[in-house]
Amino acid sequence: MALDLRELVDPAHTALVTQECQRGVMGDLSQLPALAAQATLALPNMAQLVRVARGAGVTVLHCTAEQRADGKGANRNARIFQYMAKTPLRLLPGSNAAAIVPEIEVHASDLVLARLHGLSPFQGTELDYVLRNLGVQTLVGVGVSVNVAIQNFAFDAVNSGYQMVIPRDAVAGFPPEYVDAVFANTLGAVATIVTTEQLLAAWAR
Amino acid sequence: MALDLRELVDPAHTALVTQECQRGVMGDLSQLPALAAQATLALPNMAQLVRVARGAGVTVLHCTAEQRADGKGANRNARIFQYMAKTPLRLLPGSNAAAIVPEIEVHASDLVLARLHGLSPFQGTELDYVLRNLGVQTLVGVGVSVNVAIQNFAFDAVNSGYQMVIPRDAVAGFPPEYVDAVFANTLGAVATIVTTEQLLAAWAR
Amino acid sequence: MALDLRELVDPAHTALVTQECQRGVMGDLSQLPALAAQATLALPNMAQLVRVARGAGVTVLHCTAEQRADGKGANRNARIFQYMAKTPLRLLPGSNAAAIVPEIEVHASDLVLARLHGLSPFQGTELDYVLRNLGVQTLVGVGVSVNVAIQNFAFDAVNSGYQMVIPRDAVAGFPPEYVDAVFANTLGAVATIVTTEQLLAAWAR
Amino acid sequence: MALDLRELVDPAHTALVTQECQRGVMGDLSQLPALAAQATLALPNMAQLVRVARGAGVTVLHCTAEQRADGKGANRNARIFQYMAKTPLRLLPGSNAAAIVPEIEVHASDLVLARLHGLSPFQGTELDYVLRNLGVQTLVGVGVSVNVAIQNFAFDAVNSGYQMVIPRDAVAGFPPEYVDAVFANTLGAVATIVTTEQLLAAWAR
Repeated sequence: MALDLRELVDPAHTALVTQECQRGVMGDLSQLPALAAQATLALPNMAQLVRVARGAGVTVLHCTAEQRADGKGANRNARIFQYMAKTPLRLLPGSNAAAIVPEIEVHASDLVLARLHGLSPFQGTELDYVLRNLGVQTLVGVGVSVNVAIQNFAFDAVNSGYQMVIPRDAVAGFPPEYVDAVFANTLGAVATIVTTEQLLAAWAR
Repeated sequence: MALDLRELVDPAHTALVTQECQRGVMGDLSQLPALAAQATLALPNMAQLVRVARGAGVTVLHCTAEQRADGKGANRNARIFQYMAKTPLRLLPGSNAAAIVPEIEVHASDLVLARLHGLSPFQGTELDYVLRNLGVQTLVGVGVSVNVAIQNFAFDAVNSGYQMVIPRDAVAGFPPEYVDAVFANTLGAVATIVTTEQLLAAWAR
Repeated sequence: MALDLRELVDPAHTALVTQECQRGVMGDLSQLPALAAQATLALPNMAQLVRVARGAGVTVLHCTAEQRADGKGANRNARIFQYMAKTPLRLLPGSNAAAIVPEIEVHASDLVLARLHGLSPFQGTELDYVLRNLGVQTLVGVGVSVNVAIQNFAFDAVNSGYQMVIPRDAVAGFPPEYVDAVFANTLGAVATIVTTEQLLAAWAR
Repeated sequence: MALDLRELVDPAHTALVTQECQRGVMGDLSQLPALAAQATLALPNMAQLVRVARGAGVTVLHCTAEQRADGKGANRNARIFQYMAKTPLRLLPGSNAAAIVPEIEVHASDLVLARLHGLSPFQGTELDYVLRNLGVQTLVGVGVSVNVAIQNFAFDAVNSGYQMVIPRDAVAGFPPEYVDAVFANTLGAVATIVTTEQLLAAWAR
């Protein structure tokens, strides 16, 4: 099993993707306190995975959500967007709220892909196309939220032929018992579920 | 509210989409008995919605999954596909297993979109493109499963700018308490959740 | 060069895709006589390539355009669609007009992907997703027309990371001098241009 | 006709999209002198269209190509990319080469969508999704090059259900006689071809 995981997440064909690990989503400026509380618990794992992945030669990509001050390009066709539009904070490009949380360092060798629309880091973005050009076959996804974007990300990745790996303790959603249920009844069917520790071991030299 | 729903699902811009309402998925030939048991309960609602929608002038599309005997085109990159590949039954094009359950009649005016790959009726299929050509803005989704494809469908629809409407009692997943949790913690944030009765009233003349 | 081509179109990672090689598009029932006249010249090459490719273990896919009798799903947003809608012949599913020309045999091992919408075999179809699941990296495209669909196909294939190979004498468009210009000024920049003879040699055992 | 065009490009549902109007592509830093020479002739029309469109309330989007210093995310699967990779100039994010030419002003109300991959402003980018959220139905495309990206853009737009309008004298390619042939034999079949003057009249109050 350990050997299999080592092959599955071989840095030569693997990318680590952080999903909305932003101050205004899961960090100190979050408008979703229930999500932020859970994310705080998982953040050390996210940060360590990014650091170790990068050191092992795994490509690191940060997928972020942004909003323009004039709202152009944003969705308005679901409650989740209407909620975000009503909060006082906007994920303005270049703002503190849109920034990746400081615990996760963004290096010059990382790619940052921001989007104005949608729920997923995948659909209607460069992610799939950039991953193909990088020769990536396996994705390790960390970040938030298990309620929506992490599931959407996993579905999109699987539909597009990637192996999806999710470190159980480096993603967050709410309430915690629902996150457990999602792993048991949905994500377990489409992704390989591992722990941060297992990934760190797989990427150790 | 009733007036709003009437506008939201106005037949002029609405399509009803059945997701894998197939004998070999949720019907008498299903290899997933836990899913089939739940789907049986929701099937009368699915069937009635299709009938009434069609009569009201709502476009009806049936999205199905198929497998070739040689397996070409199928995904193998997730447990759910590996499970399906091991079952004795294949959703061969033209087979009983691939057919829509008889309770849901397929009329010549309906569109049937079959796919060989993936989890979703949306990604990598004609669905989005055909819907645009039909002038559709609102989707009503029925079928299975809430665990995977109904969620994937809802995410894709929202990402692509549609209003997604889900009649709570015309979709199925398992176990039932997980389906409740998915509606409370995921689907409620991205879709408008209604009952079959509300839709029937909205489509009554 | 010959060695490079042999590697580029290695059957293990190559698919041959026929684009609208249909009786009602480029065959005896074509409504576009100028196109049909040119296609007739290239047809023996298309047919031979399909036969030899299949024998060599190259996956063969046939991408076709179809129209429903009620027109549902079809585009109406460009002159080319309006022209097709006015002709007496429809590419009805199962009709002679929609059928692949008899010179190109369709075997059970081939995949046939029909679409109701658009100009390209790629966008909004299963093609890309099926190709990924098949492990395909190089596409050899034959058929019609160089004016629109062959170019659209080549662009889409390149955007999605495939190597695109076009046998110059197994595609057709009109007038012939325009086809020459397209190869010189557009397709040469995005695809590897070869002859049927070169491909046959590369696939010879 | 004039009335029809006024309706077709009504600012309420129209976007003007500039395609790679960048100093390093078609401007003073271009590595493609034959393209730059032609683009210089069309540039005053592009610039005037952007100015008048914005004043009339048409949404303006600028689609640009960029390259990272480490090349990550870029395509390498076609001659056109290999050529660009060999030139001394890179379209680095934030560089003079990647900037929009000064004749075309970028206002805060415009959207700028940069991409690392591919030939088209459409495929694998936010463009289609942002346009849907903006309620856009008609696209007016200006920029370069008619040889590749303008055609790819037109095909993608038509496949995705938009009305595509191309001002003949606000796009450029090379050699000029090939551009004429592309309009006569390809773009005329998929797009509405107009002049800058006609569009200015349609947008006059």
